[in-house]
This record gives sequence, C-alpha cells and structure tokens, in this order.
Amino acid sequence: MEGLSAEESWAVLQHAEMPLRVEIFGFFEDEKQVEIVESVPAEQIVPLIAEMPPDDRVDLLAEVELEVVEHLMPLLPTDERRDILRLSAYPEGTAGAEMTTEFAGISEGLSAQQAIDEVRRRAEELETIYYLYVVDEENHLRGLISFRQLLTARPDAKVDELMERDIVTVNAADDREEVADKVERYDLLAIPVVDDEYHLVGIITHDDVIDVVREEAVEDAHRIAGVEPLDTGYLETGLLELCWKRGVWLTILFFLATLTCFTLWHYEAEIAAATWLVYFIPLLMATGGNSGNQSAALVITALTSGNVTVVDWWRVARRELGLGLLLGLFLGLLGFLSALGVMFVSDKQHADTTAPAEVTSQYDTTQLDEPTEQSEGESAKIVNSAVVVGLTLVLLIPCGTLFGSLLPLLFRRLGLDPALMSNPLVAGMIDVVGIVIYVRVAIWILL
Amino acid sequence: MEGLSAEESWAVLQHAEMPLRVEIFGFFEDEKQVEIVESVPAEQIVPLIAEMPPDDRVDLLAEVELEVVEHLMPLLPTDERRDILRLSAYPEGTAGAEMTTEFAGISEGLSAQQAIDEVRRRAEELETIYYLYVVDEENHLRGLISFRQLLTARPDAKVDELMERDIVTVNAADDREEVADKVERYDLLAIPVVDDEYHLVGIITHDDVIDVVREEAVEDAHRIAGVEPLDTGYLETGLLELCWKRGVWLTILFFLATLTCFTLWHYEAEIAAATWLVYFIPLLMATGGNSGNQSAALVITALTSGNVTVVDWWRVARRELGLGLLLGLFLGLLGFLSALGVMFVSDKQHADTTAPAEVTSQYDTTQLDEPTEQSEGESAKIVNSAVVVGLTLVLLIPCGTLFGSLLPLLFRRLGLDPALMSNPLVAGMIDVVGIVIYVRVAIWILL
Repeated sequence: MEGLSAEESWAVLQHAEMPLRVEIFGFFEDEKQVEIVESVPAEQIVPLIAEMPPDDRVDLLAEVELEVVEHLMPLLPTDERRDILRLSAYPEGTAGAEMTTEFAGISEGLSAQQAIDEVRRRAEELETIYYLYVVDEENHLRGLISFRQLLTARPDAKVDELMERDIVTVNAADDREEVADKVERYDLLAIPVVDDEYHLVGIITHDDVIDVVREEAVEDAHRIAGVEPLDTGYLETGLLELCWKRGVWLTILFFLATLTCFTLWHYEAEIAAATWLVYFIPLLMATGGNSGNQSAALVITALTSGNVTVVDWWRVARRELGLGLLLGLFLGLLGFLSALGVMFVSDKQHADTTAPAEVTSQYDTTQLDEPTEQSEGESAKIVNSAVVVGLTLVLLIPCGTLFGSLLPLLFRRLGLDPALMSNPLVAGMIDVVGIVIYVRVAIWILL
Repeated sequence: MEGLSAEESWAVLQHAEMPLRVEIFGFFEDEKQVEIVESVPAEQIVPLIAEMPPDDRVDLLAEVELEVVEHLMPLLPTDERRDILRLSAYPEGTAGAEMTTEFAGISEGLSAQQAIDEVRRRAEELETIYYLYVVDEENHLRGLISFRQLLTARPDAKVDELMERDIVTVNAADDREEVADKVERYDLLAIPVVDDEYHLVGIITHDDVIDVVREEAVEDAHRIAGVEPLDTGYLETGLLELCWKRGVWLTILFFLATLTCFTLWHYEAEIAAATWLVYFIPLLMATGGNSGNQSAALVITALTSGNVTVVDWWRVARRELGLGLLLGLFLGLLGFLSALGVMFVSDKQHADTTAPAEVTSQYDTTQLDEPTEQSEGESAKIVNSAVVVGLTLVLLIPCGTLFGSLLPLLFRRLGLDPALMSNPLVAGMIDVVGIVIYVRVAIWILL
C-alpha cells in the first residue's frame, strides 16, 4: 500500500477484519497513521484505536493534533481512555512512556496447568505470552515464570515454587537507555516495569527495545555532529525545523571558532615575520582535530556500551596520552618530510617563476631577516621550518587525543550527554590550542 | 563474580549444576570466557562447551587460540563438532555466522496438540520455543506457526492449515544488517535462515539482533570518525592495534590535507597582499566543515534506518542546497558582523599599541596599497574585508552541506560503507574548497 494516499489506504483497510486491520495499520508509516486519524470520521477510527496495542496507541495520539484527540477521547471505552491517560503521564524517554500495559499477570497460588489455561484464554489480547508475571493481591510483583518453564513442569506443580523471585526490573521513571542496557545484558524477551512501591505497571518487549537501541544510536550520531536530534525521519522533517536544529549549534560553534581569529591576531608580529607558517595552519588543525575526533568517537561508544565508565578516566587518559605520543611521533615525522617537500617544491617554483623584481620584493619582506642570497642558508631555514611543522604535530596530537577522550567523560560526569556536539567542539578547541603550540614552537626554533 | 580471576570463577562454577553452569558462563565477559577455556584442563571444559548454545560456542571458539581449539575439537561429541564446523564456515558478518541451529522445526501433518507435545519434549534444548518452523521431508521451509497460535487453536486442528506460509526469511549469506532491518521492521522474535535451495538451516533470535544493531551503530560511529572498527572493547584493545587502526586513516587524511598547503601557496601573492585574510581561515574552515559534517551525519543515519535511499539523491541534494543557503545567509551575516567587530577591535588595539615605527612599517607592508592615513579609507577597507568573510560563508556553507550529504550517497552507490571516514573526509575537502572560495571572493571584492 506504499503508494496509496491516506484515504485510499483507509478504504482498502475496510476490507480486512478488525484484528488484521489493526495489524496492517500498525505497519503504516507514522505520518500516514497520523493523517488517517486526523482525516477519517471519529466513529470509524475509534474502534481501531481501541484495539491498538496501548504503547503504540499513546505514541500515535501524541502526534495527532490536540483538537482531534480531544474529540476522540470521549468516544473511547473507559478502560482504554484511562490507559491512555496513565501511559501518557510518563515523560518521553522514560520506561513508563515505552511500556505496554497488556502483559500476562497471574495471581499467586495457581498450578502450572491453571496458569497455562489462564494464558490460553487471554492469548489474543496480550502483547507477549511468553513471560508470565506473578503478582499478589495488591499488584506487587512477586515473581516471573517463562511459558517454557510452565510447559515442561508437572501440570499440578505450583507456580509459586517454580517461579524466579530474583527478577530484573526497571522503574517507570528510568531512562529508556537503562531499559535497553538491561534487556540487552540479560537477553530478555521483555522486562517488567514497576513503580516506586514495586507495583507491576507494565512491560517493555524486545521489539520496542530494538527501536530504542536504534533511535539512541541515531540521536548520538546526530549529537556527535552537532545536530539537535530530529523527532521524525530526515526527509519528513521540515526545512525550517532542520535549519533551526542545525543552526543553533553551528552558531554556538561559530562563536567558539572566532577565538581562532583573536589567537592569530595576537601572534600577528610572529606570523608577519614568517608568513610561510600560514600555509601549514589548515593541515595542522585538520590533523589535530581528526586525532581528537577519533578519541571522542572511541570513548563515546565505549561509554554507551558500558565498556568504559567515568571512574576509568585515569586509565583512559594514560592510554590516550600514550597513543597520542605514538601517533604524534609518526605523523610528526611525516609532517617534517612533507613540509620539507612542500617548501622545496614551492621554493624551486618560486626561483623559476619570480623573475619580476616586484613580486620578489613582496616575497622577501615576508621572509625572515636572513640573507636570501645564499642557497645554503635558505636550505637550513627550510629544514628548520619543517622541524617546526613536525614538532607541532608531535605536541598537538597528544593534546587532541587527551582532549577528545576526556571531554565526553567530563560531560558524562556533569550529567550531560557525552555525545553532545563533541566532534565540532573537540575540533574547535584543538584549532585554538594548535595555533598557540604552532606559533610558540616557531618562536622557539626560529626566532 | 566480577572481581574474580578466571580460575577462581571456574572453581565457583563447579558448584553449579550443568545447565545453570552453562548459563552463568554465558554471562561472563568474552575475555574471561576465552581465558577459562584456554586455562582449564580440556576434559573439564569440553562438557560445558558441548552444552553451550551453538552460536555462542562458535563465537567463543573463534577467539580462543587455534592450538587449544585443535586440542578440544576431537573431544567434543560428533554432532556438536559437525555443528561448529558448519557454523564457522559462514564468513563473519553474515546471517549464517549469527544464527543458531537449535530451533524448533516440526514436520508437516501434525495436529496442534501433537506440535505442543513435541515442543514440550524438546523445550530444554531449544533457543526459542515461541516460533515453530514447519519443514518438509527434505527440510525445505514450508511455514511458520507461533506458539501462541497453537495454544489458542483447537487441539486437533492441523498445523498445515494454521500456519503462515508467507514468511519473512533471510539467506545465510545475507549481511547481518539486513537481518536486523527485517527483524526490526516486522517486530519478530526470531527470523529463519535459509540456504539458496530454501532449506531451513538456522534461526536468529531477537537478543542477537539487539547485539547486531548495537555493534553496527558502534562500527558506524567509529568509521564516521575515521577509526577502523575495533573487534573488542576499547579498554581491551592493545595499544599498538589501536594505534594502527587510527594511524592508517590519519595518514591518508594527512596527505589529503597537504592539498591545503599547496592551495595556500598557490595564492601566495594574494595572501601577501592582504595578510588579514589569514586570521579568518580557521574560522571559515571550521564553520564549513561543521555544516558538512552535520549533513553527512543526517544522511548516514537516514541511510542506515532506510529513511533515505540512493535514488533519493536529487531530493536530498535540493534539500541540502536550500538548507545550505539558509544557514549560509544567516552565518554569513553573523560572519560579516563578527569580522567587523574583530577587525575594529584589533585595528584600535593596533593604533593604541603600535607606536614604535618598526612594527608599524611591518604592518603596513601587509596592507593593501591604499592610503593608510585616512581613517575613512581604513573603515571602508574593514567593511570590505568583513564582506569578504561573510560572502565566503554564504558560498561555502552550501558547498559543505551538498558535499557532506552527497558523499555518503556516492559511497553507498559504489558499494562502500557510507560512514567510511566521512567526517574527516568532508572536513578535509571543505578546507581546500574553502580556501579557493575565500581567496577568489577576496580578489573579486578587494583587488
């Protein structure tokens, strides 16, 4: 039905029985679902909404226009209406907002066979029947039994004796990333959600967890690049919204980057004394920034997967310092040789092409106050200059790796998202630090 | 047991019955599992390996030293040995390598009750009992029935009539990302894996899919930052391996960045005629690079989630061009104002502090050949210079957004990973393009 409009899809749907209709409707893209709900007459759409899985239903209604929702709500059966209000009370991004209320809860004291019969009776309406949650009269979570355990148990065995009492749960207020971590770590089909008094209020199933993992990864990728995460798909997001979500961070980073102007201006005299310095600035910035971004990406992913925590900061710092020195020494050597090559080539070109006195004089004023006649002095100067480029890399790359690795840890420590615009931020800071190191090294070696 | 060494953990494990022992062992970190297998005597570890889930077992043995594996293999029961050889024949990253062979296959012609009894008998050994796969005598996949359907069916109903015949499958040679996409799209508990003749060879369960989604996201994050994806956790990867996986791309990018040197050298005369140009180079490069990286991140995540495909390239290009112009106009205005501010401040500072004639003369040679006496001409020059900075941003940012968005699409079209070192590559190309635009605009406005 991918090519059809909302009305056409709805017309086709009318030919399906209700359970199938709900299922097909669930496969529509979010945008189409919203459009259908907003355009189809209320009395036609209400029965379908009433039959939808509670978690999907709340997500859908959250995107529909408020006016339409207010019109639909009174038409829904009381139970469903209460359910929607309860689920939508949890803030987005929490376990409560992700959970469904259609779980298989059974009371204490049943036998295995009774439990199986109970599930069989309710199988149609439940989101998953493969985990059964045992609750007491006040709905406190007491235990968990898998359908597999029931199946292999003696029919008259008591569920209370079979069930697992030590259960992995999440609180309804927990972050959904926490949910994903637990489901992933323990390979669960579903995880029970409890409130502060350990009442069972819902479950989150494996398919929702996959969506969470995927969505969180996308959000991280956006944040790392300095984009405010989008709520909808890239092609569905309005141009102005996209502009805003990118422009905010671009502007902040722009002001950070103006620091480089002031830094360069601060070293005006030194740069004027050796203008060739300028030619290597983008190369040095890029290489320093790249090494910092590598570290940031490694540490952010390690934080997300739990491989690294904030307490490991000293271990991370030592590793990155070591790595930075190794990479710095190698790229420093490479930088020295490249600078040598670049300068010899352009020096030769220069000698070949700059016969007119005017250009030569212009060039000369930009050189160090050394005798330019002697080709030997010229060569020594070129070697010295190449040493400046190489040495800057040796010092800059460890700064990049240290900064790139510690910034996400600092953000996590401060309770911020470690991925927060880390990439451009690291590169921006390295630009400033890089200029300072570069000019200082040049003064030390040349002046 | 997190604090215990491999031997200590193994000693504790001895106190658990075999099924529980296998389960606990499965929760150990990969490194500890490998250490235990390599250190414990073969006759003690073989029974545990024989009981492990086939997919985990193959993954484990792939990391154990070859010598140890060769010693263990002959001691394993024939069935398990054959199974290991079959699973390890599929290349890493394919569905075949991820799948398990312990699925619930049932033959055609059974009744619902017979099928339930069959599952009940084999429940202990199967990875999931909640989907049953119906196969013919030659093991061709014929249909699928969920345990929930069996449970709610009449006991004497035929499975052949109840089962779903139109099944979502993957080929054993398919990429594991394809597997994750399908399981995610259809909210499956497990997906059957078939060979080219549609023989059922295994299944992949939801927990393995979560791991795939997570791992692929991490790999993408590493590639985007120009790091060759790691095989193990960040802290477990050796310093030299890490150095290699980062150094390779840093070196390639370094050589790309030397293009900026040649570009700057090419415009030597123009830069010498207006040295203030230099002070804005890092700012312009950073802003252009940031806008490009935003586009790349958006398009890469949209490609991964299926929101955008290669055929959408024209739509993407138009959006990004529009966005680039909007962002470019805004940041161009900001750049104009900032440049005005920076230059007035430093000009004033200059006038205040550069009383000594020597420094002033040095400064003057770097200015345009205009009368420096008149403060009016000076102001006009500053305004013109700020126009150059602003106009460069207006032109550079659309280049960044276009380039950043189309590079991942081009990579995908060429069969490469769209995430491949996209971030530093985009920034590196923008650096070169940025310098060219900047100097051309300067020549046009000022000279």
